[in-house]
Amino acid sequence: MREVGIVGVGHTKFGKSDLPFLDLLGAAALEALDDAGIKTGEGHCVDQLFVSSMGASIQNRISGSASALVDSLNLRPAMAECVENGPASGGSAVKLGYMAIASGMCDCVLVVGGEKMGKGKEATDFVATMLHPEAEYPYGLTLTSFAAMFTRLIMDKYGVTSEDLARIAVKNHANACHNPVAQLQKPVSLEAITTGPDMEKINPPVAEPLRRYDVCPMSDGAAAVVLCAMDIADKFKRRPVRIAGIGQATDTHCVANRAVPTDLLAVRLASQKAYKMAGLTADDMDCAELHDAFQILELVESEEAGFFPRGQGHIGIRNGETEIGGRIPINTSGGLKAKGHPLGATGISQIIEVVKQLRGEAAGRQVEGAKAGLCVNFGGFGNNVVATVLTKD
Amino acid sequence: MREVGIVGVGHTKFGKSDLPFLDLLGAAALEALDDAGIKTGEGHCVDQLFVSSMGASIQNRISGSASALVDSLNLRPAMAECVENGPASGGSAVKLGYMAIASGMCDCVLVVGGEKMGKGKEATDFVATMLHPEAEYPYGLTLTSFAAMFTRLIMDKYGVTSEDLARIAVKNHANACHNPVAQLQKPVSLEAITTGPDMEKINPPVAEPLRRYDVCPMSDGAAAVVLCAMDIADKFKRRPVRIAGIGQATDTHCVANRAVPTDLLAVRLASQKAYKMAGLTADDMDCAELHDAFQILELVESEEAGFFPRGQGHIGIRNGETEIGGRIPINTSGGLKAKGHPLGATGISQIIEVVKQLRGEAAGRQVEGAKAGLCVNFGGFGNNVVATVLTKD
Repeated sequence: MREVGIVGVGHTKFGKSDLPFLDLLGAAALEALDDAGIKTGEGHCVDQLFVSSMGASIQNRISGSASALVDSLNLRPAMAECVENGPASGGSAVKLGYMAIASGMCDCVLVVGGEKMGKGKEATDFVATMLHPEAEYPYGLTLTSFAAMFTRLIMDKYGVTSEDLARIAVKNHANACHNPVAQLQKPVSLEAITTGPDMEKINPPVAEPLRRYDVCPMSDGAAAVVLCAMDIADKFKRRPVRIAGIGQATDTHCVANRAVPTDLLAVRLASQKAYKMAGLTADDMDCAELHDAFQILELVESEEAGFFPRGQGHIGIRNGETEIGGRIPINTSGGLKAKGHPLGATGISQIIEVVKQLRGEAAGRQVEGAKAGLCVNFGGFGNNVVATVLTKD
Repeated sequence: MREVGIVGVGHTKFGKSDLPFLDLLGAAALEALDDAGIKTGEGHCVDQLFVSSMGASIQNRISGSASALVDSLNLRPAMAECVENGPASGGSAVKLGYMAIASGMCDCVLVVGGEKMGKGKEATDFVATMLHPEAEYPYGLTLTSFAAMFTRLIMDKYGVTSEDLARIAVKNHANACHNPVAQLQKPVSLEAITTGPDMEKINPPVAEPLRRYDVCPMSDGAAAVVLCAMDIADKFKRRPVRIAGIGQATDTHCVANRAVPTDLLAVRLASQKAYKMAGLTADDMDCAELHDAFQILELVESEEAGFFPRGQGHIGIRNGETEIGGRIPINTSGGLKAKGHPLGATGISQIIEVVKQLRGEAAGRQVEGAKAGLCVNFGGFGNNVVATVLTKD
């Protein structure tokens, strides 16, 4: 199988954006092409574009976004498709880019993901369309209500506390202060969001036991990567980061159908596959970007991905093991909590953070000597998960 | 590159359906799995599911359809993604299935496409979302209005007449009478829709110069294929049909930006690429399924795909060259005109018709001794086209 690397990255600042959806994607794409040293227009080298978005059509009422973008980027007659896998759309699109090159049908693939989320109840309802269309969504369930129930189960089973979740938020906010594309570049103290006098004001309940700091914000944004066959990587401006492993797994779409509702089986299977393909283990990872749409997910994913024994992730957080400088720094980018979570961009954004770590470009949040990292991109409530292992070439 | 074949096909009857979107897709999928001799549940051999649909989310308000379907089909933990490329979503999904297997990451891929179209103005507006989101759609353009303008240009330039278009509809309706999954299994005479006394009633204007029989119907429906690596094809019940070539090309998204507005450049480039990959030419094709969402498109595509010189396609129709028994039978299935056009299913449905021709299973419409066939799946108004060449193994 032909090997694949990443030679260009682009990332808009996450947060509320006034740009139209396609312009937002275009901004990230042009930055990634420029990073790779690719000129658009006649004679360009891009064979394929993948656009990942959950809301391109449902929320922005645009079909064929990839056809529009390939044209506005002046990349005709490159092939182009839109990919949708809920909040794991970005990881899926990178996987498809990998397959396109590994198959020999393409040499160079541009992957662009992004989201314009809208606001208020409409945005919450849009996000909820990823739940089961007959057994969950019509009954008014939301992702946050699921996460709240899941958190309660984990708390009861493993002794996780609200303070443990707050510690994750504090860590991720601290990391985001050093990430210029993060949405919430402001530190927060553990005291302020747990026992401080203004706690109820700055950290009000959202869906008990979850409070504001246990949940990621709504974010617009886009992220892009340029993939190429490793055998032609020297044609590009940047030294490649290798996509060493990709794993993906699905779980029951209805959360209620899971044998053990506190497990995230698809995270486990996807990570194991990605490690196996890379010929590495969890112990070889120097950093990881986990899908903390809710802080409880970073915790349970850190166990399912093999960094902690089951039910022990919160002990690691208490001990600072997931901070920069700790045993396995998690979400050095600020994570979905503080960097933001524009659904279709997130999987690509995670990969970009690990690329920056492996390039040694994560100023202020650099994991010294990082040689390998894991990304876990989580679709639905864990029904479709993509894990990616990147290594320094 | 690892070779890929088709070992299973499934196809619902096209037309108005009362089934929910996912059940419609499930019906086609189960038929295709059964055709290939694949059992679902523990130990199943499906590595990946692709779902192709233009309206899964925008029209049916379901995100992550692939995650829902992989679960309801009992194919967990197979990988799963949704693919959207307007009315070429089906061709795109088969292409991605090809890449998944050719890359070595998968051995067996299920591709399912389908659509629940809705009705009336809402459905027309949904279809129009494939037009340019800033330069076309907001101004109230529809696909039919584009096709009308395009038809007028072609008529003026090459001397094509309304009767030529009617001949295509007559041929496709005749073919559909022998296709049990076609929506409109009824013959129509040339006289009835051109000069007959009830012509204005049965064939009223839609958007001049187009009349009802120049335009495909609204259709619900689903189609599915099972792809496998040719090197493991003997594990399945059916002898494989080979995917010998796949080509895809994009054109300007805004139709007004095209240098020659009567050309369909992406059809030409995609077909040429597909022929080249297959090591064949247009002359080697024994049949073709072309994307006649409007009858004018079958005509111009038959030229761009190399079956007729430019501006001469209508002469071929007058001479019966595209009828079964003619030099190059086109749309033996009935085409989009008479078989129906559930957008996300169409590209897969076209491929299934050629598979049936190559298997010798197209009873009543069989092209005797067919060894190779072309499918052209057309996205937007020709901005993203996928061409597929199938050959008998």
